[in-house]
Amino acid sequence: MLSSKNSIMPIQLTSIVNALPDATPFIGPETLEREYQRPFVARIGANESAFGISPKANDAIQNAVNNSGCSWYADPENFELRSLLSQKHKIPLENVCVDAGIDSLLGLTIRMFAEPGTSLITSRGAYPTVNYHANGYGAIIRSVPYKNNHEDTVALTQATHAHKAKLIYLANPDNPMGTCVHPDAIQQLLNELPEDCVLMLDEAYIEFMDTMPSLPVDINDPRLVRFRTFSKAYGMAGMRIGYVMAHKDIVAGFNRIRNHFGVNRLAQIAAAASVQDTHFLAHAKEHVKQGRQRIYDLADSLSLDYLPSATNFVAVNLGNHEIANNLIKSLANSGVFMRKPMVAPQDRYLRIGVGSDDEHRHLESVLIPLMRTASEA
Amino acid sequence: MLSSKNSIMPIQLTSIVNALPDATPFIGPETLEREYQRPFVARIGANESAFGISPKANDAIQNAVNNSGCSWYADPENFELRSLLSQKHKIPLENVCVDAGIDSLLGLTIRMFAEPGTSLITSRGAYPTVNYHANGYGAIIRSVPYKNNHEDTVALTQATHAHKAKLIYLANPDNPMGTCVHPDAIQQLLNELPEDCVLMLDEAYIEFMDTMPSLPVDINDPRLVRFRTFSKAYGMAGMRIGYVMAHKDIVAGFNRIRNHFGVNRLAQIAAAASVQDTHFLAHAKEHVKQGRQRIYDLADSLSLDYLPSATNFVAVNLGNHEIANNLIKSLANSGVFMRKPMVAPQDRYLRIGVGSDDEHRHLESVLIPLMRTASEA
Repeated sequence: MLSSKNSIMPIQLTSIVNALPDATPFIGPETLEREYQRPFVARIGANESAFGISPKANDAIQNAVNNSGCSWYADPENFELRSLLSQKHKIPLENVCVDAGIDSLLGLTIRMFAEPGTSLITSRGAYPTVNYHANGYGAIIRSVPYKNNHEDTVALTQATHAHKAKLIYLANPDNPMGTCVHPDAIQQLLNELPEDCVLMLDEAYIEFMDTMPSLPVDINDPRLVRFRTFSKAYGMAGMRIGYVMAHKDIVAGFNRIRNHFGVNRLAQIAAAASVQDTHFLAHAKEHVKQGRQRIYDLADSLSLDYLPSATNFVAVNLGNHEIANNLIKSLANSGVFMRKPMVAPQDRYLRIGVGSDDEHRHLESVLIPLMRTASEA
Repeated sequence: MLSSKNSIMPIQLTSIVNALPDATPFIGPETLEREYQRPFVARIGANESAFGISPKANDAIQNAVNNSGCSWYADPENFELRSLLSQKHKIPLENVCVDAGIDSLLGLTIRMFAEPGTSLITSRGAYPTVNYHANGYGAIIRSVPYKNNHEDTVALTQATHAHKAKLIYLANPDNPMGTCVHPDAIQQLLNELPEDCVLMLDEAYIEFMDTMPSLPVDINDPRLVRFRTFSKAYGMAGMRIGYVMAHKDIVAGFNRIRNHFGVNRLAQIAAAASVQDTHFLAHAKEHVKQGRQRIYDLADSLSLDYLPSATNFVAVNLGNHEIANNLIKSLANSGVFMRKPMVAPQDRYLRIGVGSDDEHRHLESVLIPLMRTASEA
């Protein structure tokens, strides 16, 4: 239990919370800016969008701010947004649940399906927030290695059976590697999944996946929860809004535990405007595609390998994790916020986010001399 | 467990979530608007502010929207806002935790302290969202009656001992009755509280409490968590941002389970601007005071009793709950969104929110004839 000199007595937390470490999934760039006492020039480490939000979303926010949009609670049913998503994905309204971002929805999913001691299967080095929430609800994390920098659907399936797991987490496209797997591999995983196990399919980056089809949307399988977000392609990470598509009984489960008045009203309104703005989405995707190419070209110019990306970031191979770690620090010292995979063997990569033109120019002006110095050392 | 005709098999929820009813804490006004197929003219049922947000907050939002404010995740440490709150309340930074509204913080607190089967003490008819979260984490709700329309700190204390409760919930000022208790009564409750029990002191409406002092801020007692919000006096219910003041070990507990990237960036920025705008706060409080008087005058003109209010709403006595229920429906039919206490004996009251001048005019134009018809019937 937590205790301190100032306490009258130790704080009596639940056994699960008491056992948790004082750890956070990520350190924010603002923490580093306070440490370095200067703002970053290139903020390309959190897979945020450099291409703004839909002009329609912008107008909707402006209009809402002037019309009680800040003062009124959002519709707890998220009806208008869910209706638009229902139309977009051609699924019934009852199969869509909106909440304040994928992180929140991941937590609710784990809470809904994982009794304390339940196993959750993930890939070693996959999204840390899943592990954070799994620990937070007393689930046991069982991880399998990546295979050739891709999440390994066969190993995930095998581990599920071996550990009688109730949950598997798979991000497609994957973060932090930017790779993706074929929908047939996901379908194969589902075919072999036990009846009482749920696949958490995180599709935060799916709008950027342009070389492979995505799994068709079938919301009648009660073992599949698909996570989508307005944080990435729609540029609304700071607004906190995402959704799941799932069997209606799973959506009913979310409705039993979610924070019904937890969505920001401006986010709700902006998301509804964004769904309808296919022009903006195409614009953002094109910018990301160009940005990835610019990172590929940079890596080529430095004779570094990279992984072709299906996301808004590119994993660039530095050869070993010490070089990569040191480079992240040097970059931060030069005004570049970047993150990298945390777990071996992927931790020899940098994860370079697509940024604005200015951010890329700054990155290039910093990275090229740094790499030259490193190779001469 | 949930099941349906369309399911391949029943959904395997955890035992706690499986046992939950398909209930929500409140129905939103938008749901009723869809039902009545017209928007409300007076939205005075959710204790939202009719007086907007601070002009400084408005400027900060506008500036942020134009500068990646929607696209960048908020600082997960909420450092700037916590620093300002720390200065305002003259407490160390480590005693402040910011999150996406009081509802979320209430849920986290229950999760942190209540093992399944733990008793939580509340007042019968107090804030339903507490019960929603208590059920959601498998806690057992034990309730005591209000005493003369006030929360009864003596009965709450006694029930805590009787049920070996780990949590008590007390809202001061109270919602839905608008009454408040003297800080000495809360101090007495704390004096008699078991060492392993935590008081959740919800102070959402504290800025409106102008006839009584509030409990002095002492963050060294590990049995006290104080909840504050930007939803009410600061007019930011739709933004979803609130905070707790508590012992640093409790804040450390929140940091183990909260959604670190869960706060909306515009909300974070607007809240920081609002804290510094004491002029706006005074302006909003004055408007609320005038609005309460207008509701008192309306009640007087209809020869209805009311409770002097320490909040932005007034509980007006209709005599019995059937009359009150019918009136709520008639009001809704006439474009007035209003709620009322849900539990006897307080359910004979209407809870009339302070609105804008137009909203009050509409309310008066509707309520006065309705009451005349009722008294003639």
